[in-house]
Amino acid sequence: MRQIEQDRFLRALRRLPVDRTPIWLMRQAGRYLPEYRETRARAGSFMALCQNPELACEVTLQPLERYDLDAAILFSDILTIPDAMGLGLHFVEGEGPKFHHPIRTVQDIERLGVPDPERELAYVPAAVRTIRQALGHRLPLIGFCGSPWTLAVYMLGGGSHTGFATIKSWAYQQPEALHLLLAILADACVLYLQAQIDAGVDAVMLFDTWGGVLSARDYQHFSLPYCQRIIHALAASPAHQHIPSILFTKGGGLWLESMAQSGVSAVGVDWTMNLCDARMRVGHQVAIQGNLDPSCLFASPARIEQEVQMILQDFGDYPGHIFNLGHGIEQHTPPENVTTLVEAVKRFSVRG
Amino acid sequence: MRQIEQDRFLRALRRLPVDRTPIWLMRQAGRYLPEYRETRARAGSFMALCQNPELACEVTLQPLERYDLDAAILFSDILTIPDAMGLGLHFVEGEGPKFHHPIRTVQDIERLGVPDPERELAYVPAAVRTIRQALGHRLPLIGFCGSPWTLAVYMLGGGSHTGFATIKSWAYQQPEALHLLLAILADACVLYLQAQIDAGVDAVMLFDTWGGVLSARDYQHFSLPYCQRIIHALAASPAHQHIPSILFTKGGGLWLESMAQSGVSAVGVDWTMNLCDARMRVGHQVAIQGNLDPSCLFASPARIEQEVQMILQDFGDYPGHIFNLGHGIEQHTPPENVTTLVEAVKRFSVRG
Repeated sequence: MRQIEQDRFLRALRRLPVDRTPIWLMRQAGRYLPEYRETRARAGSFMALCQNPELACEVTLQPLERYDLDAAILFSDILTIPDAMGLGLHFVEGEGPKFHHPIRTVQDIERLGVPDPERELAYVPAAVRTIRQALGHRLPLIGFCGSPWTLAVYMLGGGSHTGFATIKSWAYQQPEALHLLLAILADACVLYLQAQIDAGVDAVMLFDTWGGVLSARDYQHFSLPYCQRIIHALAASPAHQHIPSILFTKGGGLWLESMAQSGVSAVGVDWTMNLCDARMRVGHQVAIQGNLDPSCLFASPARIEQEVQMILQDFGDYPGHIFNLGHGIEQHTPPENVTTLVEAVKRFSVRG
Repeated sequence: MRQIEQDRFLRALRRLPVDRTPIWLMRQAGRYLPEYRETRARAGSFMALCQNPELACEVTLQPLERYDLDAAILFSDILTIPDAMGLGLHFVEGEGPKFHHPIRTVQDIERLGVPDPERELAYVPAAVRTIRQALGHRLPLIGFCGSPWTLAVYMLGGGSHTGFATIKSWAYQQPEALHLLLAILADACVLYLQAQIDAGVDAVMLFDTWGGVLSARDYQHFSLPYCQRIIHALAASPAHQHIPSILFTKGGGLWLESMAQSGVSAVGVDWTMNLCDARMRVGHQVAIQGNLDPSCLFASPARIEQEVQMILQDFGDYPGHIFNLGHGIEQHTPPENVTTLVEAVKRFSVRG
């Protein structure tokens, strides 16, 4: 276990003073890096890469070789849980993730079991142990899972390409069945994150990628309570309660107060929210992670630096900011622009 | 000109007391109606339908035959302006709108002219006059245009399928050229809306469909000021200043205060925003239009009625609410569910 007292990222998550603003990037290990593409090609498929602890470790560490980042994040996919439930995850080029056996009926939901992370998902804690070993205690390691709502979006066979019509039909027409699915997924997420913590991660993040497509009221019914259930279960477990947590609902800026009251250590915000407003709304309760638009990484170095300065100024000289993008780094991002970003955050955020 | 004193929709736009909450629906004339599909087939293509004033009038009036709506909206497309600029609008099945000649260079922008609505866009005021004639003064008629930012998204050849990478590259790398394009589009929108008003519309709406993909700061640079320029130009013209206006930025809930300060009569909000919060934030300045999730129209009648009641309760018994969806009605919506919605709004909003 890394000593929280000594670490910039873990201290910022607790809203303790730091020498400068820590930075890491969502999807920092990924397709924009040539060395990632090389390892991915060697693995054969994306899932083979996730399921091989040595290769998952290799790609987890790649961005740390290039950039002076303040945290590593486990290389994996948010859909490992539904895959372990037997849905058969695969990736169709240009279409994103798919399942061979998506959920079609209430009976499909009732048949679902909660995977044992050390059996059906053994490759994940194995990857965490391998990474922890390779990383030592140089940097904190972040574990993660998808939010139950976000997992359910995919499991019910929908996604952004269908306008979320499938899951919304469930929400409006069979809410009890959807709640059952979300409860099973929350239980699975708890065990999954606990296994990651037991294997050595220093913080956990919940990716609620699709929470923002819900109405204000339905976010409070279908997404937030299940994230909260996960956070509370971790908090109730003596072996896991010391681990800080981050909740990121993309498009959830309007609901920031309720996200901050969920028991998490930090909330992630996308680029639609001004960080000064975010801090004024919730900064006394939780840390805030964000929020550069990933598209900015296609701009000139001077423009990237300017945007970094503005975001740092928005947040101001308070504890509790973790610099990040407002969403995952894009595939065609020039790797040298990430250097510009990381160096700019270091340079412009040093405390006087 | 319809007498504002007598009309529920126009009174609500001015925040005057009404007997019950007025309702109309974005894309109320459209593919979910079998009679629309019949007219559309007769027209041959979507653009042929837009460009034929008699057929455009026919489809504009179709939803009013079925439902007790409180306003008609001109049937047209937001991309008529770029088409009139020579970009060659066409629709690819399953892919949305495309241009034969998208903007590629700064020179392409510099060559753009501002279309004369009574020449290059003559079919639009002609349609307004035809509809006005057929509608008489039974109901108010809404005119509209796309926001300059939203038009620019399409003109630069991007859209949701590309993650808005193209227009964001312009914003980060060639902001002056993008500002020039937006200024030309704002001028074109002013003339276009003025022509619609001269031809007989009673209110105008700006559809800022893609404003919500911007960062908080860039919304204030690239979208809102150009909407404001249009609103101010209408307000400065004695022949047009009495016409109320609605600004709808999808995903713009975080920026509602600045939208409300743009000079519009009403702001449109999508379903991610609670209407009680919206009213408390801006209700003293402007009317509010919204905000049922269009997916709710796939639910049971009882569920639709419940949602209507909750939205009406959220807004409360104050003047200045226009009931609408939070986005356009979806293609496969059962037409009978729209009856349920309209009747529920009528029944549950009657002032005691």
